[in-house]
Amino acid sequence: MRSAAIGVLAGAWMASAAMAQTEFVNTLMPEPAQMTVGNGRLNIPPGFTVVVDKFRDDRLDAALQRAMRQLTMQTGVMIETGAQGGTGALIVSVDGAGKPVQGVDENESYSLEITGANAHLHAATDVGAMHGLETLLQLVQSDGHGFWLPAVSIQDSPRFKWRGLMIDCSRHFEPVSVIERTLDAMASVKMNVFHWHLSDDQGFRMESKIFPKLTGAGSEGQFYTQEQAREVVAYARGLGIRVVPEFDMPAHTTSWVVGYPELASAAGPFSVEHHFGVFNSVLDPTKASTYAFLDKFIGEMAALFPDEYLHIGGDENNGVEWKQNPQIQAFMKQHNLKDTAALQNYFNEKLLPILAKHGKKMIGWDEVLTPGLPKDVMVQSWRGFNSLAAGARQGYSGILSAGYYLDHMDSAAQHYRVDPLPKNGNLTPEEAAHILGGEACMWSEYVDPQVIESRMWPRTAAIAERLWSPQSVDNVDDMYRRLWVQSLRIEELRLTQISQEHASLRALAGTPQIEPLRVLAAVLEPVTFNVRGRWSTEHGITNQAPLNKLVDALPPDPPSRHDFEELVSTYLQDPAGRPDQQEALETMFRSWSAAQPELMQLMSGTPLLAEGLPRAEQLAELGTMGAQAVAYLSSGVAAPPGWKQQQMQALDAAAAPIALTRFTVLKPMRDLVNEVR
Amino acid sequence: MRSAAIGVLAGAWMASAAMAQTEFVNTLMPEPAQMTVGNGRLNIPPGFTVVVDKFRDDRLDAALQRAMRQLTMQTGVMIETGAQGGTGALIVSVDGAGKPVQGVDENESYSLEITGANAHLHAATDVGAMHGLETLLQLVQSDGHGFWLPAVSIQDSPRFKWRGLMIDCSRHFEPVSVIERTLDAMASVKMNVFHWHLSDDQGFRMESKIFPKLTGAGSEGQFYTQEQAREVVAYARGLGIRVVPEFDMPAHTTSWVVGYPELASAAGPFSVEHHFGVFNSVLDPTKASTYAFLDKFIGEMAALFPDEYLHIGGDENNGVEWKQNPQIQAFMKQHNLKDTAALQNYFNEKLLPILAKHGKKMIGWDEVLTPGLPKDVMVQSWRGFNSLAAGARQGYSGILSAGYYLDHMDSAAQHYRVDPLPKNGNLTPEEAAHILGGEACMWSEYVDPQVIESRMWPRTAAIAERLWSPQSVDNVDDMYRRLWVQSLRIEELRLTQISQEHASLRALAGTPQIEPLRVLAAVLEPVTFNVRGRWSTEHGITNQAPLNKLVDALPPDPPSRHDFEELVSTYLQDPAGRPDQQEALETMFRSWSAAQPELMQLMSGTPLLAEGLPRAEQLAELGTMGAQAVAYLSSGVAAPPGWKQQQMQALDAAAAPIALTRFTVLKPMRDLVNEVR
Repeated sequence: MRSAAIGVLAGAWMASAAMAQTEFVNTLMPEPAQMTVGNGRLNIPPGFTVVVDKFRDDRLDAALQRAMRQLTMQTGVMIETGAQGGTGALIVSVDGAGKPVQGVDENESYSLEITGANAHLHAATDVGAMHGLETLLQLVQSDGHGFWLPAVSIQDSPRFKWRGLMIDCSRHFEPVSVIERTLDAMASVKMNVFHWHLSDDQGFRMESKIFPKLTGAGSEGQFYTQEQAREVVAYARGLGIRVVPEFDMPAHTTSWVVGYPELASAAGPFSVEHHFGVFNSVLDPTKASTYAFLDKFIGEMAALFPDEYLHIGGDENNGVEWKQNPQIQAFMKQHNLKDTAALQNYFNEKLLPILAKHGKKMIGWDEVLTPGLPKDVMVQSWRGFNSLAAGARQGYSGILSAGYYLDHMDSAAQHYRVDPLPKNGNLTPEEAAHILGGEACMWSEYVDPQVIESRMWPRTAAIAERLWSPQSVDNVDDMYRRLWVQSLRIEELRLTQISQEHASLRALAGTPQIEPLRVLAAVLEPVTFNVRGRWSTEHGITNQAPLNKLVDALPPDPPSRHDFEELVSTYLQDPAGRPDQQEALETMFRSWSAAQPELMQLMSGTPLLAEGLPRAEQLAELGTMGAQAVAYLSSGVAAPPGWKQQQMQALDAAAAPIALTRFTVLKPMRDLVNEVR
Repeated sequence: MRSAAIGVLAGAWMASAAMAQTEFVNTLMPEPAQMTVGNGRLNIPPGFTVVVDKFRDDRLDAALQRAMRQLTMQTGVMIETGAQGGTGALIVSVDGAGKPVQGVDENESYSLEITGANAHLHAATDVGAMHGLETLLQLVQSDGHGFWLPAVSIQDSPRFKWRGLMIDCSRHFEPVSVIERTLDAMASVKMNVFHWHLSDDQGFRMESKIFPKLTGAGSEGQFYTQEQAREVVAYARGLGIRVVPEFDMPAHTTSWVVGYPELASAAGPFSVEHHFGVFNSVLDPTKASTYAFLDKFIGEMAALFPDEYLHIGGDENNGVEWKQNPQIQAFMKQHNLKDTAALQNYFNEKLLPILAKHGKKMIGWDEVLTPGLPKDVMVQSWRGFNSLAAGARQGYSGILSAGYYLDHMDSAAQHYRVDPLPKNGNLTPEEAAHILGGEACMWSEYVDPQVIESRMWPRTAAIAERLWSPQSVDNVDDMYRRLWVQSLRIEELRLTQISQEHASLRALAGTPQIEPLRVLAAVLEPVTFNVRGRWSTEHGITNQAPLNKLVDALPPDPPSRHDFEELVSTYLQDPAGRPDQQEALETMFRSWSAAQPELMQLMSGTPLLAEGLPRAEQLAELGTMGAQAVAYLSSGVAAPPGWKQQQMQALDAAAAPIALTRFTVLKPMRDLVNEVR
């Protein structure tokens, strides 16, 4: 009965995926710029042949091989490779190679024409061809008889040039395997920038051969070798993804000064930070030796990371050490620098020629944007559109990250509604052209290799669509319908965002029989970053604490949130006349109440679950509340006096954080109760 | 209702794991040689401190750190490390380092004394300490209040010195990440030999710098670099595991001669084999140049793999190329070699001094054992105990692999009952001492990186227990009870043997709602190796075919097999007086019948599931059959005439392979039907 209830919740896309299918069901993510659906289909029988009819190189060949291997895994059909220029069911025409180092202005467009006779993919570059191949794979349909592609005509190119994902590998380290799987998932939704946050107070993660103590003293053994960096860059290039490394400075530099205290603005010795927050550590911008160090270091990194941009961070400098250091204070007076912001500007101005010398353009967080900086410095905004727009009006290019913070535990819908160029943005076309896109940010206070994928995916796919698809693609219900399909595709790339929840629940419960726990877990999600942050500070939590609680098993924004909202809102349109929705709700509410005894037994066995026990009682209460509400609503009978008030109190109580979890279903529950007479 | 039925099936261990717990529940795997359980418990509170009070080195420190990290992940408790020789809740006393290169005779014993005051782990070597730490982790108990260790006294050492797992990385390549996860799982059940099958007809997988065409021409780009080999060897050593590389010769050598046709006994050119079976390719044993090649090659490999043994394969030489080559025939006459077996013996005798020169002892499959070979050649038997015993009587040491072939899709119980030294073996103690242990073998015709872990685990843990624990540990029911717990532990090491089934079912179904499919999948398993082999031959299947069918999602020997058997056999002891079992059976049979409509809808949507559709009908039939049988049995009413015969026919029909799957529940179903009057 439980599974049936969940089945109904999953809604239309499931039914269409499961039934014998005659019509094309569009599950593309991101949606292409233009698509016309025709009649007919191109079958994918054994011996389906792919040919390359113009330009080819190793990168394109590898991309084609990868896509065809995926097609074979999806369909079981062995794909043949035809002779160059010969005939085939899939013809790939690429005009020429992408740039030797993929640039911001890379031509990523492609077109895909599928008829009953064949599929023709055309792209200006191999990067465009990669995007087209992803679209092709997402178009595959099946019924009981076989697999097929619909007749479509697609003309596609991205709305924004910069569609990135940042991972903070300092607060928690992520092995290369996680990075590479992330790149696979990014490519599946046509993202093109991996922003690698490689240093922060909690660890310096990139090997320097010139300054070996950066990782030797500042990484506690967890860092990427230069060989691994080259491997990641090459892997990303094979997927059409740029790699922008970030070395955060002048603040967030505790891990630098552990090995090189002479760079610091305060007296050492220092040790790697394990706590979270804003710390005082900041490089000394008054010494020539600091710039000599940075010159050598940036030169070394510039050779390792071919991208035209190097991210210098620049954020959250609280200025404390600068204010406390008499020598620095004297320097500021001497150079007529009126405050620490002016001193940071001085630092940036010294840094710029160093970057330029090594062939790099500068990108940094909002704070880098101080008067007089050259116009080719780029801004990544954690502050928001207004900050970005202010920069654009002055001629600075920028990308948006405010609203795309994955660690905030917002819903995909919330991220989806954030636009780097909102309709009411009041920018001239020239100014708007400076806003190049955006980046999802995975800060890693509460993510480790085990849980990170469920924190990034599938929500990042919604952000990827916002950055690729036309602004008019904004239907949240349809986004979610496609998002769950995309999540399955990402799982097929060996990511663990779905299976990790179940594995973690098994580990917590000490049994493979997690059905009762899943009834509860399905309607819970982690509290917001702020709530968890406060709790962590109170409890002295560091990055060495295990992420092994119920909250860590729960994905943010699970299907229950939007599905239940949709179900309730459909039901409430006509409570007496929606028998399907009524039954789905009744079944679900029954399952919530019925789970309580098993949950109590299961959760009381281990302290890691026991702290969440009140949630089991609340779930049963919500089940009773929901059943009563539906009974009143469907029958039109009014509730007894005081009932509503009592339910609202219970809902308020259920909204308080317990075991760092929150319910996903409270708002629609409130709507249900409110509608009762 | 479904989940409840499965819950009942899971039986006693689940209840005990879930409920608030006051008594120690033993879930150790393998069982220790001797254990006495005392009264009291050692709590694991925050600040639980571990100290090393005697010998320490980097290897021991790393092992301790790994174990304590696992303990923290299990419990959420941050473990402190005390000063050497200080006081602590866990005191680790090791007499000295293991051998620089771990040997067959390594002292692996340890003792563990736990009282209410502290836990004392003592071992002669760091290898023994690693085993003791695994035991400690497996002893952890919990209730609602916290985690604790039971008061026990354990004296433990292995019954057999050689407890191995072989992986064939030629027929399908496995990335290093899979190898390392496998090593983690092996260590968790105290296995100590990783046998790495590195070359075969389908691919040469180990880089040679002297003979680069071995992988350059013979691997299709899928091979391990020497650096990776060193990494694996070091990783294994950190876990107390030896690495024995195998280079199969003189047969199974197609991949060698693709790049070096001068080694072949037939005329080239050759190409890498993609099919399965026994092929003709065999090295030319008559040329001095062959031995010159092997001398250099083995020298290079000997430097890479420090273990005292090098496996030379030696199996399945059909002699065809030798018989067809006039020059080789002339050589045989000239040297008075009467048949190809004698020629292979000649080859082995030439090989032995080469191995000796490079400091290696020879191990090979049964066929290497020919008259006159030195007594320090070791035999791995795929033929069985009799072959092994014959060797032992002549003074040859050996290990057993017959009965431990994981690709045969046998049950853990079947493997568990196979003993390298069966009670009726008729060997003298001196002869018995030559039988050193055994190895599970994962041949890789039908395993790729995606499915391999569910083919190895948890069944290999049952073999590990057979090889470690006293012969008297032989209760199959108890083994299974502990096996499912061990499988969860292995999942916590990031293996995918549980989650892969679900992920694959989601991929096949195209939806995350796989409950109906799981009802069916839970009682199916892959057909035997032979059945699949015949089917593959008929369909021309190669190692390039995707492993993406329903059969590939199914783990061999799923819980349903043994659990259902136990449930039915308990019920049949008194059908009128076992209401719990009766209800569990009724619930389960109802779920089988009820799943049919959803299954038909789901499975008809994709050709990869559609071929399994008849299974859905049969499952419904089995559900009806079971419900009727229970009704007859519980009421004592006789079935109508012909009913039994009809059911037996249905059971026979259900036993035929469909979509390469078979039911796990047919034998107990037969028992049920048979008991009906």
